[in-house]
Amino acid sequence: MSLDATDRAIVEQLQLDGRMPFTQIASEIGLTEGAIRKRVQRLTESGYMQIVAVTDPLSAGHRVALVGLRIAADADRTAAAIGSLPEVEYLVATAGRYDLMFEVIVDDEAHLLALLSRLRARKDVLEAEAFPCLKLYKQTFAWGAS
Amino acid sequence: MSLDATDRAIVEQLQLDGRMPFTQIASEIGLTEGAIRKRVQRLTESGYMQIVAVTDPLSAGHRVALVGLRIAADADRTAAAIGSLPEVEYLVATAGRYDLMFEVIVDDEAHLLALLSRLRARKDVLEAEAFPCLKLYKQTFAWGAS
Amino acid sequence: MSLDATDRAIVEQLQLDGRMPFTQIASEIGLTEGAIRKRVQRLTESGYMQIVAVTDPLSAGHRVALVGLRIAADADRTAAAIGSLPEVEYLVATAGRYDLMFEVIVDDEAHLLALLSRLRARKDVLEAEAFPCLKLYKQTFAWGAS
Amino acid sequence: MSLDATDRAIVEQLQLDGRMPFTQIASEIGLTEGAIRKRVQRLTESGYMQIVAVTDPLSAGHRVALVGLRIAADADRTAAAIGSLPEVEYLVATAGRYDLMFEVIVDDEAHLLALLSRLRARKDVLEAEAFPCLKLYKQTFAWGAS
Amino acid sequence: MSLDATDRAIVEQLQLDGRMPFTQIASEIGLTEGAIRKRVQRLTESGYMQIVAVTDPLSAGHRVALVGLRIAADADRTAAAIGSLPEVEYLVATAGRYDLMFEVIVDDEAHLLALLSRLRARKDVLEAEAFPCLKLYKQTFAWGAS
Amino acid sequence: MSLDATDRAIVEQLQLDGRMPFTQIASEIGLTEGAIRKRVQRLTESGYMQIVAVTDPLSAGHRVALVGLRIAADADRTAAAIGSLPEVEYLVATAGRYDLMFEVIVDDEAHLLALLSRLRARKDVLEAEAFPCLKLYKQTFAWGAS
Amino acid sequence: MSLDATDRAIVEQLQLDGRMPFTQIASEIGLTEGAIRKRVQRLTESGYMQIVAVTDPLSAGHRVALVGLRIAADADRTAAAIGSLPEVEYLVATAGRYDLMFEVIVDDEAHLLALLSRLRARKDVLEAEAFPCLKLYKQTFAWGAS
Amino acid sequence: MSLDATDRAIVEQLQLDGRMPFTQIASEIGLTEGAIRKRVQRLTESGYMQIVAVTDPLSAGHRVALVGLRIAADADRTAAAIGSLPEVEYLVATAGRYDLMFEVIVDDEAHLLALLSRLRARKDVLEAEAFPCLKLYKQTFAWGAS
Repeated sequence: MSLDATDRAIVEQLQLDGRMPFTQIASEIGLTEGAIRKRVQRLTESGYMQIVAVTDPLSAGHRVALVGLRIAADADRTAAAIGSLPEVEYLVATAGRYDLMFEVIVDDEAHLLALLSRLRARKDVLEAEAFPCLKLYKQTFAWGAS
Repeated sequence: MSLDATDRAIVEQLQLDGRMPFTQIASEIGLTEGAIRKRVQRLTESGYMQIVAVTDPLSAGHRVALVGLRIAADADRTAAAIGSLPEVEYLVATAGRYDLMFEVIVDDEAHLLALLSRLRARKDVLEAEAFPCLKLYKQTFAWGAS
Repeated sequence: MSLDATDRAIVEQLQLDGRMPFTQIASEIGLTEGAIRKRVQRLTESGYMQIVAVTDPLSAGHRVALVGLRIAADADRTAAAIGSLPEVEYLVATAGRYDLMFEVIVDDEAHLLALLSRLRARKDVLEAEAFPCLKLYKQTFAWGAS
Repeated sequence: MSLDATDRAIVEQLQLDGRMPFTQIASEIGLTEGAIRKRVQRLTESGYMQIVAVTDPLSAGHRVALVGLRIAADADRTAAAIGSLPEVEYLVATAGRYDLMFEVIVDDEAHLLALLSRLRARKDVLEAEAFPCLKLYKQTFAWGAS
Repeated sequence: MSLDATDRAIVEQLQLDGRMPFTQIASEIGLTEGAIRKRVQRLTESGYMQIVAVTDPLSAGHRVALVGLRIAADADRTAAAIGSLPEVEYLVATAGRYDLMFEVIVDDEAHLLALLSRLRARKDVLEAEAFPCLKLYKQTFAWGAS
Repeated sequence: MSLDATDRAIVEQLQLDGRMPFTQIASEIGLTEGAIRKRVQRLTESGYMQIVAVTDPLSAGHRVALVGLRIAADADRTAAAIGSLPEVEYLVATAGRYDLMFEVIVDDEAHLLALLSRLRARKDVLEAEAFPCLKLYKQTFAWGAS
Repeated sequence: MSLDATDRAIVEQLQLDGRMPFTQIASEIGLTEGAIRKRVQRLTESGYMQIVAVTDPLSAGHRVALVGLRIAADADRTAAAIGSLPEVEYLVATAGRYDLMFEVIVDDEAHLLALLSRLRARKDVLEAEAFPCLKLYKQTFAWGAS
Repeated sequence: MSLDATDRAIVEQLQLDGRMPFTQIASEIGLTEGAIRKRVQRLTESGYMQIVAVTDPLSAGHRVALVGLRIAADADRTAAAIGSLPEVEYLVATAGRYDLMFEVIVDDEAHLLALLSRLRARKDVLEAEAFPCLKLYKQTFAWGAS
């Protein structure tokens, strides 16, 4: 997937407001509405971009924790099982002290403990270390980040 | 922030497609378009929900890493500095082995090293341990998660 | 369990002296003895408060150690087994480097070693790391703490 | 402090109910009320036993965490400062991975983070690692434990 | 294997340029070409020295990682299996936190993850912790190093 | 640096024997000697390949250790200082538990200790953890590795 | 075992020179030779003191390493097996990061590796982490130490 | 220091009983008493062997702990300071997780804490992690060990 300057400009507008009308983006950038629509479609169909509602679980009283796992198995297989848990919102394989890291959204401490218990009872999980989030400082989805 | 069943139904629709017309949501849920619009406005203004373009940095050739920090300072102060870095996409304070954890998007290994070097040179940073992401398995933004 | 200011005042008195006569509490706070008795009964029956003798094992020549456990099982099941040991005075599930943490009171080093040996021989215990207490600095039971 | 069998029997009764009338203890054990009173006084004045209200902060919506500290200073001096914090309910010096370990009762995550921030900003604190308690399984104050 | 000053001088020349003609080495050092040839043969046949093409995988777009292993088996047996992997370029047994350490050259993150997955699925491998290389600062093959 | 199949074939020959005559490589691969010479020159001048004497310090009675460093500074600056030590044969920046990792060749334990002492006395070095090598299992320089 | 001042004085003399004649000790301390002999016999037979040749393995070209073990079994049982190895000179159960710690004297790196391999292949040994000794600074056997 | 078979035989006898008369050793080994005396003198004066009283601090009610240090200084300098403490009986520099490791004999927990406090207050000491000994399984001084 390669992006040109116009693609980036479109993404930046949609990161500010995902429902911005294409006519408005067109006039900001200096293209026709049809050209914007085509590029947005291409960015979306390629899997590079999606426009979605993003919610803040902390503001709704939920708890968030990052979890690091050490596993004794193929990462893809364990990840398939972990990823199917509805509490898991984000899951990656990592190099370093942990083999898999993920973020969970839970109702309360008892919920987190029940989730960790299920993980620890798995044969392919050696360690499950949770990092309860105490405060959310930043969450951006900005393409131009780096 | 408290949500009723209708709020949740709206959020779920917008998590599938952030640009779904309010008329379509209205007919799915059985409300007027105006009611949908008001509720979306309330969900957004409360800070609970935002509708944005979300991009996949890996598909654009970027690298992603989680980083755990041990700090020797007030978390808010250090977080303000870390959070102002454009590479930092997500930043939380955590309990446990790390004091702050964040996700960075970088161009390549040299970029990651330069970023870590800046962190390690800070007096309030005791340790900066990076976990380069090897594979992204799941990334949802679904409210109904837990 | 929700407490009002009067409840808190009663608890504070009983934290100074668990056997303080209700008439004395009544006169300190400005209520009738019967009202005090009812509130104490409610605080106790709800499980929020108990009035008990608390002893200092160190002053009787015992040794105290905290122990952190990593487990490979459901926390409730392992906790049930650990909690049934008479040496275990306090037991919690924790997030972070350890899955269960507890305090034990033992007669001497040999006793502690025998206890750790029993734990390490369990299949659901991966690690049992003891932190022998060298000095007790503070032990309060004060409700108004935070 | 040395205890005989009668002392232990008295302590055990008061661990069941700290307000048990001395006449009842006397009849259970087979001594006069005066003898019970004298022994309780001796147990209390020696610092071995206290009779107090003990509360369950979790049931009142508080959060509990254990914290392990690495310090770069005399333990007594740092402990004096940590122990003076009202959130700290229990504080010991330990051998092993941590130099001081303590339990805190806090209102919520923000409170815990603020507390950790104060600790990390201290020059004599090298590391402050928190273990948020997810569940309380056992809390006894029983002398006969070991 | 013991080396004299002439051996060292020859090695040093060949470390600068492995294809340096023996006549040139001979004139630099003050020996006959035949003497140089004999000594090089002896250094090579003893297993002390080899003259080879050494390549920089990073400059060809490959990724390099060090990996530390904890094992539950005889080191020689596990090392035989690890060493037979074509990605493993360098493998040693070490004292300390890791039992075996090795360097791998891989095509990309997915390749590294697949390799780690194979290791973690082995019964004799307890932990496989990867340290992705971010930058190569020095790589010498100089005998006179120490 | 991009390589074609002929480049790879040449590198493979020179990895077996760095002094193999170009005429021999030419006949093995089916090119003229001049073509081989040009390609070797290009491979060498691009920095991708060098032909050098590689020695085995263990067979000459030296000791080898890997060392992991945690640093509190810019990696390039610390690496410049570490890399200038003659005992350091290989030095990389890494992600994970260590910031810099390197291999040293030393005469004996006293030499290793002196080297570690110099590192630990540096302000930019937080930790220097040595992994003495107990056995060398594999050391290849093969391009075709991955 | 309780010691009086005379016992201590005798031990101190024998720590300077284990073969000091009893007549000399007698005249130093002001007792009869027979009294010295009786006390030495009592100190020895109680298991408190032994008079032995102590050797410095490092000065004879041996290597020394401390080893920390994590075990999954009763400490006494594993210790019986470890203690029967002739290389193990000193073995204790410890609280903290390791369950058993011991000192070994080995001929060389290969010997240490073989020993670690035997330990790691045991089912009751979870981790065997060696700390090769680089220098011996102090080794006393002085009773009056603390 | 190189030993022949006769030296070893003498050391072995003296490891059984440090006060064994030279005439008895002479008859066991088949040498004259004078020859034994000369060899013992040589073994002692070379620093390889000493004959001393060795005591068991645990049997006298003392506590023993191993301590691992991370330092930020030249090992010799820090070791000189640590080694001058009378509680330190054994002190070595090590490779691995700790830079210096030593054994201390202390009267009780308060004594150990005071000692650790002094160490932690030193600028050249980064971490002082104590491993209290729970049981002594083996302590030999046998030359023939490995």
